[in-house]
Amino acid sequence: MLYQQVDTAVIDGESLPWVPLTPYADKLLLKYFKLDPIKGELLVLMKVPMGVQLPKHHHTGTVMVYTIEGKWRYKEHDWVAGPGSIVYETAASSHTLEIVEAGESGYMTSLVQVSGELLFLDENENVVASENWKTSMNRYLAYCEQHGIEAKDLTAFN
Amino acid sequence: MLYQQVDTAVIDGESLPWVPLTPYADKLLLKYFKLDPIKGELLVLMKVPMGVQLPKHHHTGTVMVYTIEGKWRYKEHDWVAGPGSIVYETAASSHTLEIVEAGESGYMTSLVQVSGELLFLDENENVVASENWKTSMNRYLAYCEQHGIEAKDLTAFN
Amino acid sequence: MLYQQVDTAVIDGESLPWVPLTPYADKLLLKYFKLDPIKGELLVLMKVPMGVQLPKHHHTGTVMVYTIEGKWRYKEHDWVAGPGSIVYETAASSHTLEIVEAGESGYMTSLVQVSGELLFLDENENVVASENWKTSMNRYLAYCEQHGIEAKDLTAFN
Amino acid sequence: MLYQQVDTAVIDGESLPWVPLTPYADKLLLKYFKLDPIKGELLVLMKVPMGVQLPKHHHTGTVMVYTIEGKWRYKEHDWVAGPGSIVYETAASSHTLEIVEAGESGYMTSLVQVSGELLFLDENENVVASENWKTSMNRYLAYCEQHGIEAKDLTAFN
Repeated sequence: MLYQQVDTAVIDGESLPWVPLTPYADKLLLKYFKLDPIKGELLVLMKVPMGVQLPKHHHTGTVMVYTIEGKWRYKEHDWVAGPGSIVYETAASSHTLEIVEAGESGYMTSLVQVSGELLFLDENENVVASENWKTSMNRYLAYCEQHGIEAKDLTAFN
Repeated sequence: MLYQQVDTAVIDGESLPWVPLTPYADKLLLKYFKLDPIKGELLVLMKVPMGVQLPKHHHTGTVMVYTIEGKWRYKEHDWVAGPGSIVYETAASSHTLEIVEAGESGYMTSLVQVSGELLFLDENENVVASENWKTSMNRYLAYCEQHGIEAKDLTAFN
Repeated sequence: MLYQQVDTAVIDGESLPWVPLTPYADKLLLKYFKLDPIKGELLVLMKVPMGVQLPKHHHTGTVMVYTIEGKWRYKEHDWVAGPGSIVYETAASSHTLEIVEAGESGYMTSLVQVSGELLFLDENENVVASENWKTSMNRYLAYCEQHGIEAKDLTAFN
Repeated sequence: MLYQQVDTAVIDGESLPWVPLTPYADKLLLKYFKLDPIKGELLVLMKVPMGVQLPKHHHTGTVMVYTIEGKWRYKEHDWVAGPGSIVYETAASSHTLEIVEAGESGYMTSLVQVSGELLFLDENENVVASENWKTSMNRYLAYCEQHGIEAKDLTAFN
């Protein structure tokens, strides 16, 4: 039964690749830790250098961002998030990411937990693309295959 | 503080109107109970007569449907849901609703809990419209104003 | 991979037994639909006759109750929930169930979705017992074995 | 209405105190970021020095731990979590924390997101105490009052 496949476990960051967010932003790198195929949650580390442009996006659920290094903002808000801060995004909010300052590594690095989907919007607020557990899993599997990495089951809970 | 506004409470069904799902399907009626502006959950009763056409839609989170009367199916699945059944929909699933049999009231009636958004798709799987707590609240408020009903705060928890 | 075991599906109510909530209240019957071993959610139908005593309990997460027939209340609140109402219970709330009126079947019947655990309290508010997906699954499996019913995997999502 | 009080916002870590987990472990320090009074989620940074003893505890919902520095384990598992790892704990799991190695600051430091409650257990697995959004808010408010710090509304979403 499914519950026999479920256990508390560690996922070692060093065992996971940094995957470019193709085709939207090749220089934005994601380390996927967990992709929940039931509830639709994503848990990722994100590295973004200065100057990366990402289309405005809309979130269908909540988002939690813990900033590890560097500073960033959303163009639609007047605050800046720096190291050791938490940004809590409520459902059905939209915004445009901007990196304010890179950290020592040359990146703004953060831990991001996304519930639901990230919908990319064009200038008329039409949805032009979507990111969810399926698109993320496909990107991860394609990257692993391309680079000869043995893929893990990021959708499992054990 | 916010927690002082939070309490366990009953929401009486008779105090709430049946609101048509304009502009998508005027004969599909929704009784909105709870619209969560933080997590993005919707809790509604839904009444649908035979023959209603609703565009194919995609769910960004989970959905739970308890059928009260009548029978329905999704064109993409080979099961039929009848009275007293639960349909559990996992995140990032897409399907097209079809009413198989109306109940005594002339409707298929169900209780539906939606996490996240319902994205309507065209024949090329492009997103043409979205339903979430904001669009639902706006539809409810407009209906109340139009019909001289005092609107409740369906986004509150008390 | 786990996602290959996940799909939207119907769970037919007639295929599931009514299981007494032993050892707490033998006359309180539960039909378990879904027991989530990851997030810890329970989805059940509940039938309670007049006069059943259940210890005061505390919820660690949210609860949604849709009343199908009959009327009930919590001793700690001054409202009564009747057919077609929704009770939304916020996290870390405690209360004592009381049936006010049975429906035609002789029971108050409701659909209940519980996130997290139900902690039974003694008169000094000490936790004396707990209900969660594991205790529920064990009770369901024991009931099935005792009555020669083939158990379903209520912890799966397909 | 409640939704008018809801917005995406940053919570600056430097504006929040490190609060000892009295009376369980005075040397274990918590920085509370968000205490959700509806769903019952806690979002905290945790600093634990070597040698701290914390009673075995049980989680009623899921837990996500991102380790920032140092290493730790649960006595019931054979893995060790180090910097840059994620531990995903499923609902109704129990374990005993042990610090394996402190980081440069002298602490094992992690970001912890808890859904539901943390139940402390005695040697017979009886629940002897509980931590939830209410107990956490009370501890934070008491600490602020005692140290002349203006308390923030950690239960709000704006």
